[in-house]
Amino acid sequence: MGRRRKFWGWGYEDEDLSRAEKEQLAALLASRFGGGELTVTDPPSLAEVELRAPRFQPPASLREILTDDPYERAGHTYGKSYRDVVRAYRRDFRPAPDWVALPRNEEEVAALLGWAGDAGLVAIPYGGGSSVVGGVEAPAGETRGVVSIDLRHLDRVLEVDRTSRAARIQGGALGPQLEAELKPHGLTLRHFPQSFEFSTLGGWIATRSGGHFATLYTHIDDFVESMRVITPRGLVETRRLPGDGSGPRADRLFLGSEGTLGIVTEAWLRLQDRPTFRADLTSEFERFEDAVEACRAVSQAGLYPSNCRLLDPSEALYSGAGDGTRTLLLVAFESADHPLDAWIARAAECCRDHGGRVPEAVGGRAGEAGAREGAAGAWRNAFIKMPYYRDAIAGMGVISETFETACTWDRFDAFNRRVTEAVRSAMETVGAGRGWVSLRFTHVYPDGPAPYYSVTGPGRPGEEIEQWQVIKAAASAAIIEMGGTITHHHSVGRDHAPWYRQEQPALFLESLSAMKKTLDPDGILNPGVLFA
Amino acid sequence: MGRRRKFWGWGYEDEDLSRAEKEQLAALLASRFGGGELTVTDPPSLAEVELRAPRFQPPASLREILTDDPYERAGHTYGKSYRDVVRAYRRDFRPAPDWVALPRNEEEVAALLGWAGDAGLVAIPYGGGSSVVGGVEAPAGETRGVVSIDLRHLDRVLEVDRTSRAARIQGGALGPQLEAELKPHGLTLRHFPQSFEFSTLGGWIATRSGGHFATLYTHIDDFVESMRVITPRGLVETRRLPGDGSGPRADRLFLGSEGTLGIVTEAWLRLQDRPTFRADLTSEFERFEDAVEACRAVSQAGLYPSNCRLLDPSEALYSGAGDGTRTLLLVAFESADHPLDAWIARAAECCRDHGGRVPEAVGGRAGEAGAREGAAGAWRNAFIKMPYYRDAIAGMGVISETFETACTWDRFDAFNRRVTEAVRSAMETVGAGRGWVSLRFTHVYPDGPAPYYSVTGPGRPGEEIEQWQVIKAAASAAIIEMGGTITHHHSVGRDHAPWYRQEQPALFLESLSAMKKTLDPDGILNPGVLFA
Repeated sequence: MGRRRKFWGWGYEDEDLSRAEKEQLAALLASRFGGGELTVTDPPSLAEVELRAPRFQPPASLREILTDDPYERAGHTYGKSYRDVVRAYRRDFRPAPDWVALPRNEEEVAALLGWAGDAGLVAIPYGGGSSVVGGVEAPAGETRGVVSIDLRHLDRVLEVDRTSRAARIQGGALGPQLEAELKPHGLTLRHFPQSFEFSTLGGWIATRSGGHFATLYTHIDDFVESMRVITPRGLVETRRLPGDGSGPRADRLFLGSEGTLGIVTEAWLRLQDRPTFRADLTSEFERFEDAVEACRAVSQAGLYPSNCRLLDPSEALYSGAGDGTRTLLLVAFESADHPLDAWIARAAECCRDHGGRVPEAVGGRAGEAGAREGAAGAWRNAFIKMPYYRDAIAGMGVISETFETACTWDRFDAFNRRVTEAVRSAMETVGAGRGWVSLRFTHVYPDGPAPYYSVTGPGRPGEEIEQWQVIKAAASAAIIEMGGTITHHHSVGRDHAPWYRQEQPALFLESLSAMKKTLDPDGILNPGVLFA
Repeated sequence: MGRRRKFWGWGYEDEDLSRAEKEQLAALLASRFGGGELTVTDPPSLAEVELRAPRFQPPASLREILTDDPYERAGHTYGKSYRDVVRAYRRDFRPAPDWVALPRNEEEVAALLGWAGDAGLVAIPYGGGSSVVGGVEAPAGETRGVVSIDLRHLDRVLEVDRTSRAARIQGGALGPQLEAELKPHGLTLRHFPQSFEFSTLGGWIATRSGGHFATLYTHIDDFVESMRVITPRGLVETRRLPGDGSGPRADRLFLGSEGTLGIVTEAWLRLQDRPTFRADLTSEFERFEDAVEACRAVSQAGLYPSNCRLLDPSEALYSGAGDGTRTLLLVAFESADHPLDAWIARAAECCRDHGGRVPEAVGGRAGEAGAREGAAGAWRNAFIKMPYYRDAIAGMGVISETFETACTWDRFDAFNRRVTEAVRSAMETVGAGRGWVSLRFTHVYPDGPAPYYSVTGPGRPGEEIEQWQVIKAAASAAIIEMGGTITHHHSVGRDHAPWYRQEQPALFLESLSAMKKTLDPDGILNPGVLFA
């Protein structure tokens, strides 16, 4: 038997900060908040979790692929948002699904949806469960029975087309699994969201996940060649096409459908050759505004770096990439085809043109496997460990929130001021004013950045969720007011739904509902997500 | 008063081949067909065209923006497909709209749709009228009155955002107009479909038009930041966003909606700086297969050339770019930011690796305005003049058809054989076996090319449309059978509709219809296009 995942938080059961590390972290955070004390809570054990008995019994024909095992039910209760983990620390698993389904093939997925429709149940598609927006949770006040449909057994790479550099992959494949299966072919999807280890291809497609590439191929959308989706009405299968112009494309309806229209069982994905050339630089800026301008210059230069991440001084400090006095811009190129000297040299010029300090010796380095040094390496390390730290501090009464958006360059300055101000003001309101807000750009486009904000502040144990909600609402309202999107790549889920409905044109939402009714006439799929 | 466009074919009235040039062309084609004679028909004059009286009268409130002028009605009867021009030579303008509307603003567009709904009319959105797929024609057998809504008065660039490199442009702006307005800002959309001179931004968006860039930004889709669409139910306006992940994106529903869901009145478009560096090469290949492999190598190298056009020997011959014995690959890079030596050098290596002959001296040349030489220049010249030649030969009883698609690299060889064979066999069947089929790639992707076929053959005057239809049907059926798309960038219109419905998943079509009913409950917009 393999390692078991925590039912209450990020990662495997045997992977966590030690009690001593948590105490250290609590002391450090307390001192950064300027005093006070933070108390470490132990994570829940399964014995502490109360689950109501399943409210219904499955038919004999499906019994084999359904479980009411408490570990599975508890593990499928929530995603991995801050609020989710706080509720877990509170031993609150009230929204637990009645049953967890583990279909082994498309026929079983279809049979489960058929049963849910006939029996008047709610069906919640479940990939890796990494949602940070309430995407896999039974809606509050839902009176119907709930079955969580976990795709973990549909986890294989089924076919590889080396010529077109594409592969047919099942929806339940986790990141590491699919990369391991592609590796012998010299191919890689190179879609590395922060959730990579515990999120699935089907989940990425359903949520329009954002990945590794900071420019050009920013979302999984760009890699999807075709897909198979099981809807309550039956199968939708699209054609493998490198490009097309035949009406509105079906794939584009299911990309971002967040489990409300069907379950993605397979997709053909565009792949990359494994990179053999790499070149990167870190540029330091005295002034934040100059770093933004340099970032814009790089993003408009037609160079298409794989990495182009701006870290404001706080973000640099808390990730260990900088000392908190300067803004950093990390730029990297990778290729399986050619040395990148011309590319990195021009990116360095863009940085220097805007007052950036760039070490003289940048340029192509062969070998992707090599450890990354300096600021880029430190940042990447922090990026991967972040979910573990987030879980730890959620158990200390510390408020932690990340939210992300996108806006055009012309409005970024006013946008950023307004959003930051709204968040700071909400933090004051809830008594978390001694915390901080940091900013990075995760992805950049020729016409604008995708800003990503991290909020950390002292909460009041037992009230953190209400405090968090005030901050979240203030940030979301400011984003919508200033013309941004409620999400660039975290998706909508239940947490963003009210602002999503403000962002989208009313007639579009009405049209989308008509589509939903066609595919899911009984409204069984993931209620509360996207649709009112 | 400006120059007037032909009501029956491509271009301005004062721009056409002379009678003598047409006679020469007829003689040349006849000899290439191996004998026989081709008779030049004179284009129709307006006096020869019979139009039935309008079947209804507009309300007084709209009378000012509606015309029943015969020139306008004749000019709005068809698009510019082969079949359209043949019908014009036959003086057949039976599907003429009853009225042509020329709204001056969004309110008038909305009022026109309101009137059409109330009065039970058909409304056909009309941009530049360059459809080659029957996209702007009243459907055969339509008993309702028909109004063609021409956006020509909504033709301005309304706002320029230099920082984000974007502009707000009205839907009725023709290519040259919008480029002229962007030029003083040092910006360019660089979307140059063959129809550029006589097609509009709104038309490009509605049809998912394919443009200048052979890689990366292949369709107008990639440049659309947001849009305003007047539907029969009201306005849909999306947000200006460089990227987003908030559910299925509204823009993606209207991209490719081909005037069936609403009328695009404005859009924010992503622009480019005007290029100042350019580098190009022409590589010759003895074997077609090697050229395909070289093209694949270039498209998978991560270099993103602006041009990457493969011309098979026939295509090279008939465009004057080659002598008909070799396959050519034209590769070009352009940039406003950096010299392109490293890029073109690597592209040249890719060609040589696959047996291509590339002149030694390729590399960056400054100045975009410079005349292009050699094969690339010859090909570009032929590309621009093509519509005039096509119109001329349509009047000689010669069959002319172009169709385009996309498929993955792994299946290209079998795909191409089958499609070519189907077309040749259909040509034999209809007695056009002495003609030819040529092939180019207009756009290429890492996972496959967009093949574009041109068919020319001797027809029987008076029967050309029936002959053409047999060839078109054979080509379309083979494309669908072999897993391609019925269109990569010409759009669906009425001509491709039967195959479009085979290509798309049935449940998706049903969902799309539900959306259509929401936005256009009376079914007034462009009936026969996309929807059955």
